[in-house]
Amino acid sequence: MALISPSRRLRRTPFSDGVEAAGVKAYTVYNRMLLPTVFRSVQEDYHHLKEAVQIWDVSCERQVELRGPDASRLMQLLTPRDLRTMLPGQCYYVPIVDETGGMLNDPVAVKLADDHWWISIADSDLLLWVKGIAYGYRLDVLVDEPDVSPLAVQGPKADELMARVFGDTVRDIRFFRFKQLSFQGRMMVVARSGYSKQGGYEIYVEGSDIGMDLWNALMEAGRDLDVHAGCPNLIERIEGGLLSYGNDMDDDNTPHECGLGKFCNTQTAIGCIGRDALLRVAKEGPVKQIRAIAIEGDPLPSCDRHWPLLAGGKVVGRVSSAAWSPDFGTNVAIGMVRMTHWDAGTELTVQTPASQLSAIVQENFWI
Amino acid sequence: MALISPSRRLRRTPFSDGVEAAGVKAYTVYNRMLLPTVFRSVQEDYHHLKEAVQIWDVSCERQVELRGPDASRLMQLLTPRDLRTMLPGQCYYVPIVDETGGMLNDPVAVKLADDHWWISIADSDLLLWVKGIAYGYRLDVLVDEPDVSPLAVQGPKADELMARVFGDTVRDIRFFRFKQLSFQGRMMVVARSGYSKQGGYEIYVEGSDIGMDLWNALMEAGRDLDVHAGCPNLIERIEGGLLSYGNDMDDDNTPHECGLGKFCNTQTAIGCIGRDALLRVAKEGPVKQIRAIAIEGDPLPSCDRHWPLLAGGKVVGRVSSAAWSPDFGTNVAIGMVRMTHWDAGTELTVQTPASQLSAIVQENFWI
Repeated sequence: MALISPSRRLRRTPFSDGVEAAGVKAYTVYNRMLLPTVFRSVQEDYHHLKEAVQIWDVSCERQVELRGPDASRLMQLLTPRDLRTMLPGQCYYVPIVDETGGMLNDPVAVKLADDHWWISIADSDLLLWVKGIAYGYRLDVLVDEPDVSPLAVQGPKADELMARVFGDTVRDIRFFRFKQLSFQGRMMVVARSGYSKQGGYEIYVEGSDIGMDLWNALMEAGRDLDVHAGCPNLIERIEGGLLSYGNDMDDDNTPHECGLGKFCNTQTAIGCIGRDALLRVAKEGPVKQIRAIAIEGDPLPSCDRHWPLLAGGKVVGRVSSAAWSPDFGTNVAIGMVRMTHWDAGTELTVQTPASQLSAIVQENFWI
Repeated sequence: MALISPSRRLRRTPFSDGVEAAGVKAYTVYNRMLLPTVFRSVQEDYHHLKEAVQIWDVSCERQVELRGPDASRLMQLLTPRDLRTMLPGQCYYVPIVDETGGMLNDPVAVKLADDHWWISIADSDLLLWVKGIAYGYRLDVLVDEPDVSPLAVQGPKADELMARVFGDTVRDIRFFRFKQLSFQGRMMVVARSGYSKQGGYEIYVEGSDIGMDLWNALMEAGRDLDVHAGCPNLIERIEGGLLSYGNDMDDDNTPHECGLGKFCNTQTAIGCIGRDALLRVAKEGPVKQIRAIAIEGDPLPSCDRHWPLLAGGKVVGRVSSAAWSPDFGTNVAIGMVRMTHWDAGTELTVQTPASQLSAIVQENFWI
């Protein structure tokens, strides 16, 4: 692997000092911000995540803030998911598409109030799309990136650790709900959510100045729980079928191709951008779709480009993420497969840069 | 320095195989794409750039393509620079601002025809802003990212190398002009431009499939010119005062703060986004501005965050890029300084994470 050159353009976070002190070994860049990828090793981090509790610097999940009388109108314009019954205190996973139904981002919308939303984004400058739409429509709304940096607490012991720092009330937070809780006298949005299947929370830390205090408090409180610095884990997220925008899908893909059709209420979310195109897709169904793929053979290298999936010498799909799973004893992967070959059990061939390997379409992801 | 984790989300380019074969040592990420930063060492690459000729994979300068009857109208909407006299075959450096005059990008606009433009972007998803504006205004224009990847040929021997591959006609291309020239029967936009002060060209390679053929042809033709793989060089670009969006300025800054007021024709570019705010700025002048800064002492580490500039213990600015210059025997830097302290010769103190050092505001950049 090559090195990453530091520059101000690859933004540090309020928790970078803690991440460095914890011995981060590698980064990726996400929303022009540093996102750790490895502490001890991807496999060690993986086992630890499933057994204990980790603190993740996911500041790179930047927020697009909507404030003002037209905030809710704008939010519904942005997504085909019907938001009419959504209440303050809820988080919704919301595909955001352009007018042709191509995915621009797959963020989590956080409803603070009718006139106040955060959109917690995946890796694209959704801020620019939202600003452009708000300006083009002359909406009465302020759109900005606030000084809010999510810190995730993930793993089976996350409840215990969070209760020690924020009080037992965190245990009552339901999945994809949030409460405003105090740390050092400052209120923070604390949601039960996160980019793993091990359970946990995301703390939306408002104000960079308090970042390291919170990081240190969590590390201190969790010492006997074997708390470690961690990060979204490639193996665990593939096992769990957590998609990654930019890896597994991009603006070429509709939500339906990504298995996100259930978040597209094209019959009721009238007026949302991309509605006409998605109504058509919903009627006809996608011709290719995301699938879990098992790949035989030795542990694979990183999937840094599309690996074609072949059947009878013809390309019928591609793999976009892959990793060796110690727990399942196979290479686990995420791919997009044409409908002719997407049934569970279909045997395909995957072409990696190094070799051709057998691949089998799975019924479900591993978790 | 930490490692960079490969993934499909950090996009490879049509030239990545060549870059790897040339022994790239480090990358940055720019527009979610890999941009090499070091081959031999930053200093060796620097000396070589000033003496010979280098091939740079700058595919990360992605294009936003505008096509259709409203393309020129949209382009003028996007920038305060007056484009009325711009002809096909010209390239213009165009600040792009939001409605408050905050910079969203500082790209180069390439006018292919009245109804066909490319915007060769710096590091932000300008595509999303342009798509949002086009959609909000209901303009009759297609906005997309085409399969176009710039390859730069930079250095004093660039003319000779380019003439060998594209013919002597390249020598007649004037600065910030382009010609359509053939390589292996395919027409390519070849502009005299590039992110160095050593002279050279940028080839807008349309079609990823031909990328390595062109890379190899340039390497082969330049063997006796000591051609090497290279990349934008941190030292050389600071010496030359080439600003970097995301490092030296961002959406908090107006073009005037960045010394780009001359590209804002707020009296004539009527109707452009941000015109009202910039007209106000133009009347009053900015209260802080980009300056060349010399920093005394030993060679500095990378500037990975703002370094405050102090005068009498008060913050009067910040440094955003810095490097040791072998040719000028000092640390060269780019900073933003308040008007109270921006005169050439002003002595300031810069606070790096490690120490306080003397800094002197310069009259001009070093080249």
